[in-house]
Amino acid sequence: MGIEDVTGRIARDLEHLKQYTATPGNGCTRLPFTKEARDAVNYLKELMTEAGLEVTEDAAGNVIGTLKGEDPDAPCVMMGSHYDSVVNGGDYDGIAGVICAIEVARILKEEGFVPKRNFVVVGFCDEEGMRFGTGYFGSGAMLGHRDVEYTKKFADTDGVTIYDAMKGYGLDPEKIGEAAWKEGSIGQFLEAHIEQGPVLDAEGTELGLVEGIVGIQRYMVTVHGRADHAGTTPMDMRMDAVDAATKVISKIADWAREKADGTVSTVGYINTVPGGMNIVAEKVEFTVDIRSMNNDNINDITNRIRKALDKEVAEYGGSYEMDNKLTITPVHLSSEMLDFMEADCKERGYTYRRMPSGAGHDSLEIGQSIPTVMIFTPSKEGRSHCPVEFTKYSEFAKASVIMKDLAKHYLEK
Amino acid sequence: MGIEDVTGRIARDLEHLKQYTATPGNGCTRLPFTKEARDAVNYLKELMTEAGLEVTEDAAGNVIGTLKGEDPDAPCVMMGSHYDSVVNGGDYDGIAGVICAIEVARILKEEGFVPKRNFVVVGFCDEEGMRFGTGYFGSGAMLGHRDVEYTKKFADTDGVTIYDAMKGYGLDPEKIGEAAWKEGSIGQFLEAHIEQGPVLDAEGTELGLVEGIVGIQRYMVTVHGRADHAGTTPMDMRMDAVDAATKVISKIADWAREKADGTVSTVGYINTVPGGMNIVAEKVEFTVDIRSMNNDNINDITNRIRKALDKEVAEYGGSYEMDNKLTITPVHLSSEMLDFMEADCKERGYTYRRMPSGAGHDSLEIGQSIPTVMIFTPSKEGRSHCPVEFTKYSEFAKASVIMKDLAKHYLEK
Repeated sequence: MGIEDVTGRIARDLEHLKQYTATPGNGCTRLPFTKEARDAVNYLKELMTEAGLEVTEDAAGNVIGTLKGEDPDAPCVMMGSHYDSVVNGGDYDGIAGVICAIEVARILKEEGFVPKRNFVVVGFCDEEGMRFGTGYFGSGAMLGHRDVEYTKKFADTDGVTIYDAMKGYGLDPEKIGEAAWKEGSIGQFLEAHIEQGPVLDAEGTELGLVEGIVGIQRYMVTVHGRADHAGTTPMDMRMDAVDAATKVISKIADWAREKADGTVSTVGYINTVPGGMNIVAEKVEFTVDIRSMNNDNINDITNRIRKALDKEVAEYGGSYEMDNKLTITPVHLSSEMLDFMEADCKERGYTYRRMPSGAGHDSLEIGQSIPTVMIFTPSKEGRSHCPVEFTKYSEFAKASVIMKDLAKHYLEK
Repeated sequence: MGIEDVTGRIARDLEHLKQYTATPGNGCTRLPFTKEARDAVNYLKELMTEAGLEVTEDAAGNVIGTLKGEDPDAPCVMMGSHYDSVVNGGDYDGIAGVICAIEVARILKEEGFVPKRNFVVVGFCDEEGMRFGTGYFGSGAMLGHRDVEYTKKFADTDGVTIYDAMKGYGLDPEKIGEAAWKEGSIGQFLEAHIEQGPVLDAEGTELGLVEGIVGIQRYMVTVHGRADHAGTTPMDMRMDAVDAATKVISKIADWAREKADGTVSTVGYINTVPGGMNIVAEKVEFTVDIRSMNNDNINDITNRIRKALDKEVAEYGGSYEMDNKLTITPVHLSSEMLDFMEADCKERGYTYRRMPSGAGHDSLEIGQSIPTVMIFTPSKEGRSHCPVEFTKYSEFAKASVIMKDLAKHYLEK
């Protein structure tokens, strides 16, 4: 096997998959339980079959290809990612990791390698959660975290529930429980994915060895003041919600910078009510998104925001609410596997860096209970979830080679 | 004449006028050139006639009542305000000042006073500018600042121009120029108006002697950054428009407070683009509204905003625009008339304070070329431009008495 052959096969497959989009010419739109998803899954099944894998589709819509090992009852080594996309997304987010996993199986086959345990390739269904406002549907189902009730609870903007969408797609949502794997049946999980951030591309580094997936806390903060005429109300008689809120917002990024350990914080949305040019704002709503590998940092920034808001409202007499929208604690990936990958990168002469993942992935769901690792490939200018998303095929090839070595290491014992 | 009689008549008239609204039960909505405006004008004409005034309606829709003086060619003393309202506004903004002016004529008549010069009562058309996005239509026309072209330039949200609205109302827009008064024909202009701010009500002061109308500068500021994933983009690789913009916005109110001379500054509107919870903002738009009697203070705050924005974009690499939307220089009202009113308040035992007006008025238009003064009555809790707008009738009566004394002073010579 030459790296050029690996690059070529990955390029062929990913180029072929680009056609399975609901928005041709405007990026990949491959929502779960749609014709595009079905077409992509059919192509993945073909590739898996060609690679000598035993192919099945589980009750959650995950597509699974198994390279049988000598002891098929021993905990398997699983590798994969998701085949769905966001609306007008890129051609690599998720699906490239599925192709890399199939490529690992192809290289193993080419090498004539006979694994001691099963090597399982997975294409997960609905990681993005775009259609139903959820996420990690397929990987969650595999871990036994999704039931019939769940499929009835969430619906898309047309009112179609996951339950009905599954039926229309040819799946039986009543059997969702059958997608769950027995505890202990998955020994390791490996995922290749594009970085979706600018770090590797900016540095010119080929691979990211992902130490963990950051914890996240999200808040919707509402600051209440009082609407007043902007011309006739003296400064000392105002309860200006913009003044109070921006005195806090303006510090939130600095508090993350201070940590200088990759902690990030973002206020992406501010809404002023009533929003008139000549009216003192009676209400400001803003979002906060804080992420870090160190949960203490997240809690510290959250506390600082609260204290700063307390101080502002004590001073100007308004009030505030800070509504928690999401709390995820950081997931640390397998240091044993990271050490193996690092040594392998050095040996093969690939440039790499250890780094956290700032975005969620199927590995976030899986890594909480199963030894898991991820490898990142560079995203040009950090762009993702948009049509211009780009990664060189040679970088997917290098990621596949490292993952192949890692998988082999575990499949040999 | 007893103050109770004055209060009673003003109460009767303003209560009667409450019915001329397009939104009964939800405040006063009396837009220019509508049935409500016509009904109100007809009632004002009746009152003027009863008060012994000679009544006309000019080409701009202003209703005018004249108490003839011994020398009708001498510069007149004019008093009035506007009869239109905003949508769902209050029952006193504008119209109360017209009724006070009629009341001054009634008291003068009761006193058997024969003026040396004409005393002219005016109800101005379209001060608010709500319907056509303009303002000071009637007072502007009286000064010769409105022409046929102007009436064709502005239209309401249904596409009806001022020109067409005037025709439908029974006016001839081609004759708008005839509404202009000869230079020098108006000797003094007097206006009673509600404060529309909280100062008098909070202090328990009966009357505000208005020293001037503040200058205003308004800007729409746009800060450009770059949209990035809130999880995967390290803090030092961001161009966060929210971070940059709020570092400036959070200081704008403080800069006005520092002046401690009544200068006010307001950011009432902030818009984040794209506004996603997990996306670093690529653009923030915000408004700035700065008002002061001291134009240097307005310029200083504007300059500080520019400097702060320069600093932020130099640091994080974005850019900004600061688009001027409005510049009005402060108007200083007649100190001679203010001194007279102050002495009169002391003599009559009315509580008063000198104060600026933070809002625009017909006096803003008129005061730029003619000796002008305003008197404010308290607005309960500072509320205005809303149905709960409230001022005690006895306070309008006191304002009328002071204005009567002032008018008489000039009408005697």
